[in-house]
Amino acid sequence: MENATLNVQGMSCNHCVKAVEGGVGELNGVTSVKVNLNEGTVAVEYNPEKVNLAAIKEAIDDQGYEVE
Amino acid sequence: MENATLNVQGMSCNHCVKAVEGGVGELNGVTSVKVNLNEGTVAVEYNPEKVNLAAIKEAIDDQGYEVE
Repeated sequence: MENATLNVQGMSCNHCVKAVEGGVGELNGVTSVKVNLNEGTVAVEYNPEKVNLAAIKEAIDDQGYEVE
Repeated sequence: MENATLNVQGMSCNHCVKAVEGGVGELNGVTSVKVNLNEGTVAVEYNPEKVNLAAIKEAIDDQGYEVE
């Protein structure tokens, strides 16, 4: 497993948390995803043999949020 | 028809808009509901014979937002 913490713009409420955690969490290979609303971060744990950071960033982007 | 504009705390993103507009819009007697995110307001048009402001405020509260 690998871990990454991404800085993400625009997450403002619990709906945003659910959207991001839902979108990232349904990726095959993502084993954990946790949004910190106060810090504006998304912490992910993933299996690098199944998924990469580019796909994770795209899943966040697809929900309408900008990864720095 | 009657119109009212309510000041509502905590609406921060488009998910909030959908939650409030959905919750209020499904009330019988509400003919129009429009959230203004920048101003923090909810404008409603409703038939006072079918629904009242108390029920509208409760629908907003039920979505997790505070009506001033």
